[in-house]
Amino acid sequence: MSYIALADRQRRINHLQHVEAIASWDEAAMMPAGGGPNRAEALATLRVLCHELACDPRVGDEIAAADAGAQALEPWQRANLREIKRAHVRETAVPTALIEAGSLAESRCEQAWRQLRAKNDLATFLPLLEVVVANKRQVASALSDRLGLGLYDALLDGFEPGARAAALDPLFADLRRFLPPFIAEVVERQKARPVIVPQGPFPIERQRWLGLAIMKQVGFDFEHGRLDVSHHPFCGGVPRDVRITTRYDETDFTKSFMGVLHETGHAKYEQGLPPAWIDQPVGRARSMAVHESQSLLQEMQVSRSPAFLEFVTPFVREAFPDRVAAQPDAFTVENLTRHYTRVKPDFIRVDADEATYPCHVILRYEIERRLIEGSLEVKQIPEAWNASMKELLGVDVGNDHKNGCMQDVHWPAGLFGYFPTYTLGALAAAQLFAAARRGLPGLEEGIARGEFAPLNDWLRTHLWSQASFLETDALMTGATGRPLDATAFKDHLAARYL
Amino acid sequence: MSYIALADRQRRINHLQHVEAIASWDEAAMMPAGGGPNRAEALATLRVLCHELACDPRVGDEIAAADAGAQALEPWQRANLREIKRAHVRETAVPTALIEAGSLAESRCEQAWRQLRAKNDLATFLPLLEVVVANKRQVASALSDRLGLGLYDALLDGFEPGARAAALDPLFADLRRFLPPFIAEVVERQKARPVIVPQGPFPIERQRWLGLAIMKQVGFDFEHGRLDVSHHPFCGGVPRDVRITTRYDETDFTKSFMGVLHETGHAKYEQGLPPAWIDQPVGRARSMAVHESQSLLQEMQVSRSPAFLEFVTPFVREAFPDRVAAQPDAFTVENLTRHYTRVKPDFIRVDADEATYPCHVILRYEIERRLIEGSLEVKQIPEAWNASMKELLGVDVGNDHKNGCMQDVHWPAGLFGYFPTYTLGALAAAQLFAAARRGLPGLEEGIARGEFAPLNDWLRTHLWSQASFLETDALMTGATGRPLDATAFKDHLAARYL
Repeated sequence: MSYIALADRQRRINHLQHVEAIASWDEAAMMPAGGGPNRAEALATLRVLCHELACDPRVGDEIAAADAGAQALEPWQRANLREIKRAHVRETAVPTALIEAGSLAESRCEQAWRQLRAKNDLATFLPLLEVVVANKRQVASALSDRLGLGLYDALLDGFEPGARAAALDPLFADLRRFLPPFIAEVVERQKARPVIVPQGPFPIERQRWLGLAIMKQVGFDFEHGRLDVSHHPFCGGVPRDVRITTRYDETDFTKSFMGVLHETGHAKYEQGLPPAWIDQPVGRARSMAVHESQSLLQEMQVSRSPAFLEFVTPFVREAFPDRVAAQPDAFTVENLTRHYTRVKPDFIRVDADEATYPCHVILRYEIERRLIEGSLEVKQIPEAWNASMKELLGVDVGNDHKNGCMQDVHWPAGLFGYFPTYTLGALAAAQLFAAARRGLPGLEEGIARGEFAPLNDWLRTHLWSQASFLETDALMTGATGRPLDATAFKDHLAARYL
Repeated sequence: MSYIALADRQRRINHLQHVEAIASWDEAAMMPAGGGPNRAEALATLRVLCHELACDPRVGDEIAAADAGAQALEPWQRANLREIKRAHVRETAVPTALIEAGSLAESRCEQAWRQLRAKNDLATFLPLLEVVVANKRQVASALSDRLGLGLYDALLDGFEPGARAAALDPLFADLRRFLPPFIAEVVERQKARPVIVPQGPFPIERQRWLGLAIMKQVGFDFEHGRLDVSHHPFCGGVPRDVRITTRYDETDFTKSFMGVLHETGHAKYEQGLPPAWIDQPVGRARSMAVHESQSLLQEMQVSRSPAFLEFVTPFVREAFPDRVAAQPDAFTVENLTRHYTRVKPDFIRVDADEATYPCHVILRYEIERRLIEGSLEVKQIPEAWNASMKELLGVDVGNDHKNGCMQDVHWPAGLFGYFPTYTLGALAAAQLFAAARRGLPGLEEGIARGEFAPLNDWLRTHLWSQASFLETDALMTGATGRPLDATAFKDHLAARYL
């Protein structure tokens, strides 16, 4: 009965989180700017109510009783209990006032960021971000006390249970050694085979048509999701109603095209979660690293491959017939493959190639960790950012902060501890795709013919349908034969680029 | 302090209702169909939480204490307390289980209705509606017991505080006598001056352009609202973020055009509510009759007038230049005025002219009252509907139920007791517009020049900014010099049509 009480409460919390997810998607994709202040308050109240439900004083006793009777539970119920406990510890560690203040500060900062980034207005932005960081430091401190983790680990653990800075450091140090010479070598090699850059204009309606067509081909379920526009692309909504967004640039269709595929990877994971567990913690995506593994498997492993580009080039050509007529050599499989595997140190993370991408992540990880630990202040971010971009990628940001430290929505939105999961996800994507290739002979030939069902079925079996039943290591071991490491990622980079 | 506690709780409830409003708009305007079942559950949980907050056992004592200290409150606070009490009585009268079951039944019925109406599938629809009606009868019974009102009055009072069937009956009886001969006379007169029906196709994008252009002209604030598409047009969202919808018919732009103006009337009311009271009951729209007075003042009084059509015809011509070239006589001020004042008994309420419109309302009022009082069963609706359409408007519905009893979203959505407010609103619109004309010399000449600020300012002063500070009679008396009656409406019909 205690388990039932816990599960009933979770269903309630999940329903509120459902509405929160939709209202947050709306806030980013639909809401007129003038609705922002009132929305920020409404979302904060909703967040507080979720917190109060989760912190109901009965929960502690219910958990203890459910634990005592756990042997009578089914395996998925036991896993659900584990996830309920994990969430309960985190929720009860943070005082309600911090939850409410954080939600308000983050909504306000993100809303302002949308306008301020466009105007490159760093001076107005930083004080708003300071409020977010000050709150997040307090949250980290409260979580740290409860969990017995370092300040940064306490946040990281919320996105990737079990991940620790102590394990990230050697991993990132390894990539820091490996990547710069690797990038330099690839850049040098690729000089011999320049990309013909497709010239626009590429009307937004045609880019949207192309995105929708390819989403459908790779298995996005439009009965349970949709595609819209936002300032920063994301995958939101709920598993039975997944909302992905993109942003369009009329001069360059290739960014929204690959961005849509990235978010479609996230979306297929959500849509593949088991409907029977839809309203319970065990029914959610395992973690953000696993989530990013699905977006990056779709984007980096699959969609930048020659096989995939062989399949989609006819769609691209159909989308922009007058551009093709004007520039036939730009719209060939070979040129598009070259374009999508071009390694080029540049400013924007979400548009980065897979070799330079980890440098963007390492930069953010180092800065956000110092921010949370108190050894860097918000006003010092631009200098630290620019120095790191110069060091890691040889790029000069200068005063172009909208393409520097203001480019991402994560910090304004309070998502500190999230960035490392992109690189963990990239490693996992490589490891998973290698395992899928081993398990599915002829996979790439199929992809070249537009056959995505075998890969989707493999992912559904090994990952999507597993939701949070297993923890990350066990999930990866079940799917690939070993826990997550960097081997497959490095092998993949060497095979594709050298 | 008790008042403060009540107001704080109301702010919380309002924040949840904000999120509910956005999630409901999304459900109707954005959600893919597959998201429906989970959304229905999430909305039901949200509704239950609002109910539980409103029924907090401390509220009774707080209200008693606030009442005792009411002389120390400001006038708007006293009015707010009055509204809090009104809502509290209604909320606490209905058991939580009925709230939850009703919300689920209504979501499910409305979701199904979207598909079933298109398929004219009455047989599948009626059993779903039966669940809604059975629940609503129980709700009416619970409210009736608490309020000491009749079953139907108990629901009607939720949309129009103070309205009673006993007052509607003679009013509707009067219209029932007045309208049929009036309609017959107008139809006869209008035969001499036939309308040239504008021939499509009218591309949806151009219809949307036209709607947005006119919304802007008449004062819709796009910083605080937007226009989208849904199966049934409505005005939703929240005052600082108003969401109106329309539906497009490529063969006839005149329906969406006037529909958008109707919803814009609602929207301007919401956008004009006082921001300082945004999260309190006194800051809400007064009632649904007053709300409909604002939509119908915009649609019927203003937008079907020769002055308005003189102003907007150039926009219409700009929207559809090739249609104008093909059929120049159809796109004149005179012909469009004739079109928009054509009296023609027909099937669809939302597309009806202002003379036949009350007949649609009377029909629904009579049926829904019998449904709630138990003297008519759901399965008898089609027969009652068709008989009434024949009697009141001389129209044969036959088996075309999608244009008969399945046409409106209100009953699937559980909105029993709402329909009479359309006719109360039509009367109020006429009375208000007559008062505005008296108060604003040259009003119509200004409208012909596209000057809407004087009318909007008058409405803002007398209605929008008053929110729920006054009750309906006092509000109407303040604005027009007397409580609501049918005189101005009949005078208006006579002046425009005879």
